[in-house]
Amino acid sequence: MGQPTVVEYTLSRLSQLGIDRIFGVPGDYAFPINDAAETLPGLSWVGCANELNAAYAADGYARLRGAAILSTTYGVGELSALNGVMGSKAQRLPVFHLVGMPSERIQKLGLITHHNLGDTVYDRFQPLSAAACCVQAVLTSANCVDELERVIREALRQSRPAYLVLSELQALQPVRGQPVNGRSLQALQRQQSSPEELEAAVEAILDRLDRAQRPVVMVTDLVRRYGLRQQAEAFIRKANLPTALAPFDKGCLDESLPQVIGMYSGAASSSPAVRSLVEEADLLLDIGGLVPADLNTGSWSASIDSSRKVTVSDDWVQLGDKVFVHTALEDVLQALVERVKPREGEHGPGRDLAPLVGSGAEALSSAAFTARLQRRLRAGDTLVVETGSCMLHLLPMVLPAGVDVEVQGLWGSIGWATPACLGVAMAKTVGRTWLVSGDGAHLLTLNELAVMGRYGVKPVIVVLNNGLYGIEDVFSERGHGYDDLASVRYHLLPAAFGCQGWLSEQVRTVSELEAVFERIEAHDGAAYIEVMIPNEESQPLPETTVDRNYKLRTPTAE
Amino acid sequence: MGQPTVVEYTLSRLSQLGIDRIFGVPGDYAFPINDAAETLPGLSWVGCANELNAAYAADGYARLRGAAILSTTYGVGELSALNGVMGSKAQRLPVFHLVGMPSERIQKLGLITHHNLGDTVYDRFQPLSAAACCVQAVLTSANCVDELERVIREALRQSRPAYLVLSELQALQPVRGQPVNGRSLQALQRQQSSPEELEAAVEAILDRLDRAQRPVVMVTDLVRRYGLRQQAEAFIRKANLPTALAPFDKGCLDESLPQVIGMYSGAASSSPAVRSLVEEADLLLDIGGLVPADLNTGSWSASIDSSRKVTVSDDWVQLGDKVFVHTALEDVLQALVERVKPREGEHGPGRDLAPLVGSGAEALSSAAFTARLQRRLRAGDTLVVETGSCMLHLLPMVLPAGVDVEVQGLWGSIGWATPACLGVAMAKTVGRTWLVSGDGAHLLTLNELAVMGRYGVKPVIVVLNNGLYGIEDVFSERGHGYDDLASVRYHLLPAAFGCQGWLSEQVRTVSELEAVFERIEAHDGAAYIEVMIPNEESQPLPETTVDRNYKLRTPTAE
Repeated sequence: MGQPTVVEYTLSRLSQLGIDRIFGVPGDYAFPINDAAETLPGLSWVGCANELNAAYAADGYARLRGAAILSTTYGVGELSALNGVMGSKAQRLPVFHLVGMPSERIQKLGLITHHNLGDTVYDRFQPLSAAACCVQAVLTSANCVDELERVIREALRQSRPAYLVLSELQALQPVRGQPVNGRSLQALQRQQSSPEELEAAVEAILDRLDRAQRPVVMVTDLVRRYGLRQQAEAFIRKANLPTALAPFDKGCLDESLPQVIGMYSGAASSSPAVRSLVEEADLLLDIGGLVPADLNTGSWSASIDSSRKVTVSDDWVQLGDKVFVHTALEDVLQALVERVKPREGEHGPGRDLAPLVGSGAEALSSAAFTARLQRRLRAGDTLVVETGSCMLHLLPMVLPAGVDVEVQGLWGSIGWATPACLGVAMAKTVGRTWLVSGDGAHLLTLNELAVMGRYGVKPVIVVLNNGLYGIEDVFSERGHGYDDLASVRYHLLPAAFGCQGWLSEQVRTVSELEAVFERIEAHDGAAYIEVMIPNEESQPLPETTVDRNYKLRTPTAE
Repeated sequence: MGQPTVVEYTLSRLSQLGIDRIFGVPGDYAFPINDAAETLPGLSWVGCANELNAAYAADGYARLRGAAILSTTYGVGELSALNGVMGSKAQRLPVFHLVGMPSERIQKLGLITHHNLGDTVYDRFQPLSAAACCVQAVLTSANCVDELERVIREALRQSRPAYLVLSELQALQPVRGQPVNGRSLQALQRQQSSPEELEAAVEAILDRLDRAQRPVVMVTDLVRRYGLRQQAEAFIRKANLPTALAPFDKGCLDESLPQVIGMYSGAASSSPAVRSLVEEADLLLDIGGLVPADLNTGSWSASIDSSRKVTVSDDWVQLGDKVFVHTALEDVLQALVERVKPREGEHGPGRDLAPLVGSGAEALSSAAFTARLQRRLRAGDTLVVETGSCMLHLLPMVLPAGVDVEVQGLWGSIGWATPACLGVAMAKTVGRTWLVSGDGAHLLTLNELAVMGRYGVKPVIVVLNNGLYGIEDVFSERGHGYDDLASVRYHLLPAAFGCQGWLSEQVRTVSELEAVFERIEAHDGAAYIEVMIPNEESQPLPETTVDRNYKLRTPTAE
C-alpha cells in the first residue's frame, strides 16, 4: 500500500482522535478535502446550510467528543466561519478548521482567481482565520507528518481551535515520512506536569483545605474540556465539600450530587444562601478557573477575595500570590482525589424542582415553561441553551441526574445554539438532544433545520417566541423598534425545510404545552415547538457601580 | 442647539452622502448606534436576520446608492459580517461598517466582558475587521470631526469599505470642533487629477485611438462604482466604437446601445464573432480595468496582449509600458467624451433574444427559463444574479434597454444574492427587483426572506431548484454526495416567514412558468417562484493548460 496523500493522512490522523464527522460547506479549492471526506472509512461529511452554521455545529460536536473537524473553502468560506471558530476559542474547544486554497501552479503563475481581491496575494486570509485558533500550519507533502503532530498536540494542550491550510495541489501529494498511528483523545495525556511543581502545588492545596473552616468548591467548564468531569465528580464526592457552579459552567457536573448547592453568580446567585456560602467561605477552591465576566458574576457583583481563593487551571495553580506552573489539571485532580481528607456533614436542604406555576388555559410564561421542561428532562438528555433571555430562566434551573447542558456563555453569539444542537445530536450515541432558543437568536441560523431534516437527527426544539430580542431588556431598555422581529410562523418551518416525520406545533397555553410534551414522549422522531410567550418584564441584571453599558447609572446601596 | 454626540454626528455625516438606511443587527455595545439610528431624521434602521446577511444587504444597497451603512456589535457581530464586507472590498463598494465596543470605563477597570476571550484585550477584533476595509478609525469626541472627513474621503476615493469603531461611552460624548455639512455623493469629486498627467494621458489615449484600425472598447463595473455610467455611455455613443462587456461587468452599461456587441470572456465569449473582434483588435480601450480572473476570462483563455491595450483605471492610465498617475477616471472620461473623434460605421447584426425553447407541459430547463425571463424584464428593473451555475446561463443573456444587473463575480460568495436583493430593493425608488438564485446558494441566507416580509419590500424571487450545488459540475465533477442538498420545499418558505401578500408558487413545466409570470404582471406585491429544473449536463468551462483545480488535465488543442 502506498503512502496516503496529504489530505487522506490529515483526515485519518484527526479521525484517530475519535472524530467521525466533518462539518462544512463544499467548494472550489476545497474539493480535495470534500472528496477525501467522502471516501475515507470512519468519516462522514455533514453538509451544513452555511459556514457559520458549520462552525457552530462543529463547536457543538466538540463539546461532547472532545474535538471536531470543520471544512470550508478559501476566503468566502473561512471568513464566514470566523465568528464560530472564535467562539470555540473563547469556549476552549479544539476544532480543526481545514481550508482549501488555490494550487501552487496558480500561485506560481500569478493567476487572478475568484474568492480574492483581484490580485496575487494568495495568503491574505490566513492571518484572519488563524486569529481564531491557537496554532496553524500550511500542510505540504514534506511537512505534513511533523506539522500535524505539532498542531494536534498544541490544539489539545490548549483546548483551542487549529487552522490547517491545504492547497488543492499539495492536498493530493503523497506524504513523505512515516505516518503516525495516533491514539484516541481519551487515551492521551494533554498536559505534562513537572513532578516537583505538581507535588508542591498539591501539597499547598491540601494544606489550605486542611486549615479551612468553611471551604467551598467551584468547578468550571474547563474540566469538561479536558475530559475530566468524572475525576472532578470523584473529588467532590470524596472531599464532600459544598460545590457551586457559575452560569457559564452549567452542565459541567452532575447536579444531583448532594454536594452541589446551586448557582453562584454574585447578586444573581440562585439563592442568598448560596451567595453567602461562597462569599463567606474562607477558602474557595476554584477547579478550572472561574471566568469573571459580567454575565457570569451578576454584573461583576461577585465578591471573591483572591487571598481566599485557590485556582486550579489547565496547567497552573494559583494560591494568593503564589503561582505553580506545569501542573496538569488532570494530575492535580488525580492527586487531590487520592489524597484529600473527606469532611463530615450534610449540605443543606435538597434543591427543589421549580414550582408548577400556571395551569390550564392560562397563557404561558417563562416560569411556567421552565418548570415543565425541568420535569421532562431525564438522564442521558443534553439541553442546548441559546444565549439570550432564555438563558436567564434556564441556567438557574436545577437539573435532574444525568442531564447535561451546553451553553456559550462567554462568547455569547446569538444563533449559535441551533447549529450547535445539530452537532450535539450527531455526537451523541444515546439520549435526546433538546434545544431551547429565543426567536431572535433562532432567526439567525434556522436554515440549519433543513440539514437536521436531511440527516435525520431527532432533536426536540423549543423556540420561545415573544416577537423581540428579549435580552436587550436586560442590557438596555424596553420599547426600541430595533428589538422587534419579523412575524415568523416558526412552527411552519420544519415542513417548509422538508423535515419528514417531525412533530411541529405552536402552543400558547399551559395545557397546550403539557399536551405537546406528552405527544413528544410518544413520538419517535424530531419535534419542534413554537412556544408563544407574551413579552415579560424581566429581572434586570444587578446594578453595580460600574457603568455596565453606556447609560450613567446611580450605584445602588448594598 | 448643542453639539451632536459622536454617534449622532457620525450617522448624520454619513447620511449626507445620500444614505437613508442602516442595515444591521442590534446588540450590546452597539446600542448607542442602534438608538441614534432610530431617532435621527432621514435614516431608518433595517434589522437583518443576521450580520452576514446585513453586510450583503448593505453591499446591494451601495451598488445603487453609491455607499451604505452597516452596523454590527463587537466581536460576534463584526466577525460574522467579515466575509460580506470583504466582498464589498473585492467588488469596490464603500460600505461604512460601524461597530460598537465596550466603554472606556470597562477598559480602564480591566473588567472581563462577554463577546471576548476572557481577557482584557479589548481591541482584539479591530485588525480583523479592518482587513476587509481600506481605512479605519476609532472615533472619539476629540477626533470625530477630523477622522470622519479622512475616512469618508478615503473610502470614496478607493471605493472600498471603511471600519468605524465607537465605544459605548465615546459614542455619547458631544463632538468637539466644527461639524461639517457634507455634500451628496453625486456632488463630490472622488479622485483628484494632476492637470499635466491628465492631459498627457488623454492625449496618449486619443492618439492611440486615432491610429487604431480595429479598436474595441470594454467597460467595467468600476465605472458604475464611481457613478460614471452615463459618462461612459456618452463616450461610447459619441466614439461609436464596438463595445464588449466581461461577465463580471454585466449591467454596467445599457446593453441596448447599438455599439454593444456582446460578452467577451475568452473561449466562453457570447459568440466567436465577439471573441475575434476583441482578440483581433489592434487597440482594446479598457475603461475601468478588466479583472483577469478565471471566471471572467473563460478560465484564463482570454488573450489580450498588453501592448494592444489601454487601461483607464480609477486614478491611473496604462498604455503598454507607460503608466500615468493622478488621472481621475471621471476627468479622463469627461475629456474623452469632449475630444474623441466619432467613427463611422455599424456594429454588426443586432443582438437577438434567446430562442423560446421548450413549450407546454415540457419540463423546464435553464435555457427555457432564461428565454422567458428575458422577455419579462423591462426598463427600470434590476436583476440580481447569484453566483453559481445560474450565472453561466444568465450573464450571456442580452438585456432589454434600461435593465440593470448586479452580480458578485470576483468575490463569488454563494448566498450573497438573497440579502443583496433586499438592499437593492430598498435602494430603488422605481422599478422592480428580480432575484435569480440556485437552491444551494439560496439556502445559505434565505432567512432574509423574513426581513423582506417584515419591511414590505416586493421583489420577484426565482429559486432554481435542481437539488444540488450545480456550479460544482463545472469546477469538479458530477455525482459527489457532498453536492447534494436538503429537500427543501422552497415555495412554502414565504408563508412560514410571515411574508404577507406574497405570491408563492412551485413550477415544473414551461406552461406553468409562463402562467406564473402572467400572474406576477397582475400582482401588486412580492412573488416567489420555485422553479424545478432537472439537473443538466452543464457546459464545462474551457480548459486551459493551467491546472484550474487539482486534477491534472490534458491541455486541449486550440
